[in-house]
Amino acid sequence: MARFSSLLSFSLALLIFLHGSTAQQFPNECQLDQLNALEPSYVLKAEAGRIEVWDHHAPQLRCSGVSFVRYIIESKGLYLPSFFSTAKLSFVAKGRGLMGRVVPGCAETFQDSSVFQPGGGSPFGGQQGQQGQQGQGQQGQQGQGFRDMHQKVEHIRTGDTIATHPGVAQWFYNDGNKPLVIVSVLDLASNQNQLDRNPRPFYLAGNNPQGQVWLQGREQQPQKNILNGFTPEVIAQAFKINVRTAQQLQNQQDNRGNIVRVQGPFSVIRPPLRSQRPQEEVNGLEETICSARCTDNLDDPSNADVYKPQLGYISTLNSYDLPILRVLRLSALRGSIHQNAMVLPQWNANANAVLYVTDGEAHVQVVNDNGDRVFDGQVSQGQLLAIPQGFSVVKRATSEQFWWIEFKTNANAQINTLAGRTSVLRGLPLEVISNGYQISLEEARRVKFNTIETTLTHSSGPASYGRPRKADA
Amino acid sequence: MARFSSLLSFSLALLIFLHGSTAQQFPNECQLDQLNALEPSYVLKAEAGRIEVWDHHAPQLRCSGVSFVRYIIESKGLYLPSFFSTAKLSFVAKGRGLMGRVVPGCAETFQDSSVFQPGGGSPFGGQQGQQGQQGQGQQGQQGQGFRDMHQKVEHIRTGDTIATHPGVAQWFYNDGNKPLVIVSVLDLASNQNQLDRNPRPFYLAGNNPQGQVWLQGREQQPQKNILNGFTPEVIAQAFKINVRTAQQLQNQQDNRGNIVRVQGPFSVIRPPLRSQRPQEEVNGLEETICSARCTDNLDDPSNADVYKPQLGYISTLNSYDLPILRVLRLSALRGSIHQNAMVLPQWNANANAVLYVTDGEAHVQVVNDNGDRVFDGQVSQGQLLAIPQGFSVVKRATSEQFWWIEFKTNANAQINTLAGRTSVLRGLPLEVISNGYQISLEEARRVKFNTIETTLTHSSGPASYGRPRKADA
Amino acid sequence: MARFSSLLSFSLALLIFLHGSTAQQFPNECQLDQLNALEPSYVLKAEAGRIEVWDHHAPQLRCSGVSFVRYIIESKGLYLPSFFSTAKLSFVAKGRGLMGRVVPGCAETFQDSSVFQPGGGSPFGGQQGQQGQQGQGQQGQQGQGFRDMHQKVEHIRTGDTIATHPGVAQWFYNDGNKPLVIVSVLDLASNQNQLDRNPRPFYLAGNNPQGQVWLQGREQQPQKNILNGFTPEVIAQAFKINVRTAQQLQNQQDNRGNIVRVQGPFSVIRPPLRSQRPQEEVNGLEETICSARCTDNLDDPSNADVYKPQLGYISTLNSYDLPILRVLRLSALRGSIHQNAMVLPQWNANANAVLYVTDGEAHVQVVNDNGDRVFDGQVSQGQLLAIPQGFSVVKRATSEQFWWIEFKTNANAQINTLAGRTSVLRGLPLEVISNGYQISLEEARRVKFNTIETTLTHSSGPASYGRPRKADA
Repeated sequence: MARFSSLLSFSLALLIFLHGSTAQQFPNECQLDQLNALEPSYVLKAEAGRIEVWDHHAPQLRCSGVSFVRYIIESKGLYLPSFFSTAKLSFVAKGRGLMGRVVPGCAETFQDSSVFQPGGGSPFGGQQGQQGQQGQGQQGQQGQGFRDMHQKVEHIRTGDTIATHPGVAQWFYNDGNKPLVIVSVLDLASNQNQLDRNPRPFYLAGNNPQGQVWLQGREQQPQKNILNGFTPEVIAQAFKINVRTAQQLQNQQDNRGNIVRVQGPFSVIRPPLRSQRPQEEVNGLEETICSARCTDNLDDPSNADVYKPQLGYISTLNSYDLPILRVLRLSALRGSIHQNAMVLPQWNANANAVLYVTDGEAHVQVVNDNGDRVFDGQVSQGQLLAIPQGFSVVKRATSEQFWWIEFKTNANAQINTLAGRTSVLRGLPLEVISNGYQISLEEARRVKFNTIETTLTHSSGPASYGRPRKADA
Repeated sequence: MARFSSLLSFSLALLIFLHGSTAQQFPNECQLDQLNALEPSYVLKAEAGRIEVWDHHAPQLRCSGVSFVRYIIESKGLYLPSFFSTAKLSFVAKGRGLMGRVVPGCAETFQDSSVFQPGGGSPFGGQQGQQGQQGQGQQGQQGQGFRDMHQKVEHIRTGDTIATHPGVAQWFYNDGNKPLVIVSVLDLASNQNQLDRNPRPFYLAGNNPQGQVWLQGREQQPQKNILNGFTPEVIAQAFKINVRTAQQLQNQQDNRGNIVRVQGPFSVIRPPLRSQRPQEEVNGLEETICSARCTDNLDDPSNADVYKPQLGYISTLNSYDLPILRVLRLSALRGSIHQNAMVLPQWNANANAVLYVTDGEAHVQVVNDNGDRVFDGQVSQGQLLAIPQGFSVVKRATSEQFWWIEFKTNANAQINTLAGRTSVLRGLPLEVISNGYQISLEEARRVKFNTIETTLTHSSGPASYGRPRKADA
Repeated sequence: MARFSSLLSFSLALLIFLHGSTAQQFPNECQLDQLNALEPSYVLKAEAGRIEVWDHHAPQLRCSGVSFVRYIIESKGLYLPSFFSTAKLSFVAKGRGLMGRVVPGCAETFQDSSVFQPGGGSPFGGQQGQQGQQGQGQQGQQGQGFRDMHQKVEHIRTGDTIATHPGVAQWFYNDGNKPLVIVSVLDLASNQNQLDRNPRPFYLAGNNPQGQVWLQGREQQPQKNILNGFTPEVIAQAFKINVRTAQQLQNQQDNRGNIVRVQGPFSVIRPPLRSQRPQEEVNGLEETICSARCTDNLDDPSNADVYKPQLGYISTLNSYDLPILRVLRLSALRGSIHQNAMVLPQWNANANAVLYVTDGEAHVQVVNDNGDRVFDGQVSQGQLLAIPQGFSVVKRATSEQFWWIEFKTNANAQINTLAGRTSVLRGLPLEVISNGYQISLEEARRVKFNTIETTLTHSSGPASYGRPRKADA
C-alpha cells in the first residue's frame, strides 16, 4: 500500500513535472482557444481616486505582451508623477484635466513672465547676479506668492491620446467636476522595455500602501517612492535642503496613495484652453526632443479616417500623424458606431491589439489561427479584449452607440478586411475564390463585389441577398 | 522499504525537477554539439499536392529561431490563400506557376480592359451610376463570362525568391506540367512576429483535416479556415450574400486540404510571360507599398555575385537588391557549384542561416563555438541544415553539380571567410599568425597568401603545397 | 508512517514544482531586492595574461541582459583574434597597446610601401603578373624579412572605448611595459546576438584549455579554435598548404591559452603614435563600412561633457560621437570625480547600465522600482555594479579620486536627474511638489531651486540648508 502510494506520488510528480517542463521549453502563450472580456484584477485605492490594474498574466495579455491600467482621478485629484520602463500610450476616456511630462534635459519653458521679465528674461541667467537676484525675488514676492517656472503643462480632455517615452515622469490633475478616467497600455514586449515583462511603475512622490499586488513576491510590501530609498542625509545633500524636509520627501507618514487631493488652488502656469492641437513652433533640434508633440485628439469626427453619418466613424493615430509613435512602436484606433452598424471582419496584419470599450455595448466574434471561434459575446463599457496578430474580429454595436479605443503594438498597424471594397477577397481572382470555396463563378462574383463599403456596414434587418445594396459612402 | 521507496521517489522527482528548472532558467538552445541534416517531420496531404513541415522544435531550428516548410503543388494545383504572423521568404525550387499576394488597402490593378473600358475606365468609379452600370455589366456579360479585376498576379519559375510580409495573404497556382516545389522560411524570432515562436498559418479558404500537427495540443483538431470561425449569419451580413453561400465559404464539407485541383480553365488576368524582373513604374507612395517589388530570380548566372566558369556561381539577395527585405530582415544566397568545387570555410557574422539543398549532393563540415566539428557528412536534395551565427562551414560538391539556397536572418547578412583573398587571415598581420599558430613567418606567409580566390576554389586532386596556385578568377 | 512519508514527498515535490513552474512561466528576473558589487567568477589563465569572466547568470546581469569580461594582457602579450556573436563595447582601463580588427570584405590598407611601391602600388593588382611578381618579392626579401600587408592596426591607450560588431575578429597586443587591462561588455539581449543569451567566444587561433566554464555542460571540455573543427585535409585544401602546417593551425599541442607571449619583435605595420583620433578620409561607401571609426578616447577632459575643476568631469560616448554605435545599440559614460564630490541622484530612462570601477572608491546607493534601497555600500577598483533601467543611483567619491566607466544598452542612453538644474523636480510645478510631498510652497521652492548644479555637486561638510549655495559651474 505504502509502496503503491509512493510510486503513485512519484509518477504523479513526474507527470506534472514533465508536462510543465515541456510546456516551458516550447512556450506557446498564443495558443488561445478561448478569449474573455477582461475586467481589472487589482484596485489600488488612493485619497482622490483609484488605479485599476489588469492582470498581465492573463493569457491574452501575455500573448500580446502588454499590460493595461485604468486611472480614475476624482475632481481636484492629482496623480503624482511616476514613470515606467516601458513605452506607454494613454487615452482619456472621460473628463478633462491638466497633464505634465518632464522630458530629461529640456528647459522650463513655462514661466510666469510678469515676475521674471523685468529681471532680464532668464531668472538664473547669470552666475554672478543669480543669488542676489533670486534672493530679491524671494523677498519681494513672498507676500504675493512665489512665481514658478516648469516644463510644459497641457490641457487634456476626452478623446486625447497621449504617448509617453520610457523613463519619462508624468502627472495628471483633474480640474473638472467629474472623474477623469484615463486608460493606458504598457508595451512590455517591446525592446524599449529593458527590464522583464512586468509592469513596474516608479513613483517620484506619494506611495502605494497596497504594494505592487500584480507582481509575485511584492504583494505584501508597500511600494514607496524613489526618494524613500535614499538616506535622508543623501537627499539633503543632493537637494541642499535640511534633513527634515528631506524626510518629508520620502512620504513615509503618507497614506494617501498616488492620487492625492489638492488643497487650495492649483495655480500652475498653463496656456489658455483653446485648440487642442496647438501650432508648435518648428525650431530645429528642440522640436524633435523637447517640444515634440505627444498628444492628439481622436474624438473629432472632422478628422475621421472613415466617416459615414448613418453608421459612425473610425479615426486612427499612427506615426504619420504623431511622429513620436515611430519610436514608441505603438498606434491607436478610435471607433464610434451606431446601433446595428458592423465593423466588417478584419485582422491585424502586423500588430497585436487591445480593445477597450469606453461606452456602450457590442457583440464581438473573434477567430483564431485554427479557424475556431474563440470569442462570441458582448463587450461592454470598461471591458478589455486583446486581439492577437492575425486573429479575425467582427464587431456589431448592440447599444445605441458603441465607443471603443484600440491600442496596437506597431507604429503603423495594418488591417486586412475580409469583406468589402478594399478586402482581401476583393483582391483575389474569381477563379481562386470559386475553386477555393467550391462555388460557381457567379456566386464568387457576389462574394467579391456585393459589399462595396470599406470598413463599416449595416447589419440590421435582413441582408440583401444576391445583389449589391446601395453604398452608404 | 516503503519509506525508502517514497524517499527515493521524492529524491528522484526533486532531482529531475531541479535539473529541468535550471535548464529552463538559463536557456541555452544554441549549445549545439551535433547538427543533423533535417528532413520534414510532418506531411499534410491535400487533393493536389502536399505540405511538408520541418519540426521547428529541432535544436538547430530553435537556436536559429526559424521554421521551414516545403510546398509541393501538382499540375493544376492551387495553393489556397493563407497568411502567417511572421515574415516569410520563399524560393521556387522546381517548376513554374502563378502567384498572387493581396496587400491590404491596395487597388485591384489587374483589370480586363476589354469589358470595362467602354464604361468609362473604372467599373465602380461613380457612386450614382454604379449600380445601374454594374447591373448592366452583369446582364451583358452573363452569357460570355464575367470579367474580373484583382490585385497583381505574377509568373514564378525556378530560382525565384519571394518575400512576403506578415499578415499578407498569398496563393500559388501550378500552370506547368511538373510539380511546383516551393520552400519557405518563417522568421519566428523576429519582432515582426508578435505571436509566440510557433508557425501559425491562417487559412482564408480550404482547411487542413490533419490539424496543426507541429503544435502541442493541436494535433487532434482539424484546422479550419478563418471564415469557419464566424457564424454564417455574420458572414452573410458582411458579404451581403445568402446564408447558404456563407456556409459554403466555411469549407466544412471540404476534404481537399489547402491545395486543391482547379476544375476547368484557370483564366486569371496575368501579364504576358516575358522578363522576370518587370520594369516597375515609379509613382510615389504607391511604389513603396502597393507595387513594391517582392520577387527576384537568383538562377541567372549573368547576375551572379561570384562567377567562375569552372567552379560555379553564387548569387545573393539582400536589401540593396530588394528593398522590401529591409523590413522583413531576411536575405538569401543561391549557390551552384560543380563537382569537387569547394566553398571556402566561412561563418555568418550577423545572421543565422538555413541551407536547403535543391539538387545534388555535397560534403559539409560545420564547427561550433567550442571548436568542435558538429557536422561532417553528406547533405543531399531535399535536406536542410541550419548553421547558427558564428558557426564555420565548408562545403564541397560531391555530385556532378550541387545547388542550394540559404536563407539568412538579416537583411544584409555578412560572411567572413577563413581562407582566401578577402579572408580574415588575410587581414591579420603575419606576426599575429606566426605567434598564434607557432609557425614561421614563411609558413604564415603561405597560410595568408597561397589561396588567392575569394569564395570558391578547387578541392580535387592533390593540393598545391607550398606555393600559390594560379587563380581561376 | 510510510504512507505519510510518501504523501509528504509527493506534496513537497508538487510544491517545489509548482513554485518553480510559476516562476518560470512568468519570468521576473528584474525583481531585484538586492544588488551586490560583483567580482569575476571565472579566471582563464594563459601564457601571457588572463581572462576574467563575470557570471552572466548573476541576477543583476541577467536582468541587464549583458555579460562582462576583463582581459589582462602582460607586456609582450598577444590576445589572439577571436569574435563573439554579440555586439561588444570595450574600454582600456590601463596600459597601452595595439589593436586590429578584421572587417569582412575590406581591403588590406596597411602596406609596407617600401617594398610594394616599385611594383606598381598594388601587390596583387594584375592577374597575369601576379605570380611572378610575388615569387620575385619572396625571393628578393627572404633574407631581409617578408614585407606584409593587412587591415588597419590602431594604437590604443587608457581611456579608449572600442566598439566591435558581432562576428568581427579582433586582437590586442601589449607593446608597453605594464599590463594592458581591457574590460568589455557583451550585449546578449540585443537582437544583434542571434544565438542564445550566453557569451560565446569563437577563437580563430589559440585555445582555452579550461573550457567555457561559464556555460552549463561545457565546463569539462577544453575549447579549441575554429580551425580545429575542420579536418586537416580540408584546411590544407582551403589554404593551399601542406597537411602538417594545417595541423599546426589547429593549435592542438598548444597550451598557451588565448593570450600568448610574442617571441622576438612584433613588427606589424602601424601608423606613428600621434593623435588618438585620426582624421579619416571620407570616400563614399568605404567610409561607412571599411574605414568607419570604431574607437574614441574618453579620458581627455578637454572633451568632457560636464567639467568642474573642483569636482571632476563626465564624458559620454553615444551614436552622435561614434556613428557605429547606432548599429551596436550601446553607449558609454566615463566619469572621474574628486573626494566627496557627488553625482546627483539619477536614473537611466531607456537603458540598462553596468558600472565598472577603474580606480578609487565610491559610496553608492541604488533604489529599485519598489522604492527599496537595493545597494548601499562601497564599490572599489575592479568591481562591477549593474544598474537596471529606471533604478535610481547616487555616487559619492570616498577615495582621493574615483574613476569609473558605465556601459549602457542604448545607442543614446538618457538620464533623468532627481535634483539639480535639469532635474525632473525642476520641471514640475511647485503645486505638484507641494501637494505630492505635503510641504509648503516655500519648502517646495527650496527643493526645486536650491541645487543649481546639473550633475556634480559637493557632498562634503554640512549641507547649506535653506538657501541656495553658490554654483561651482
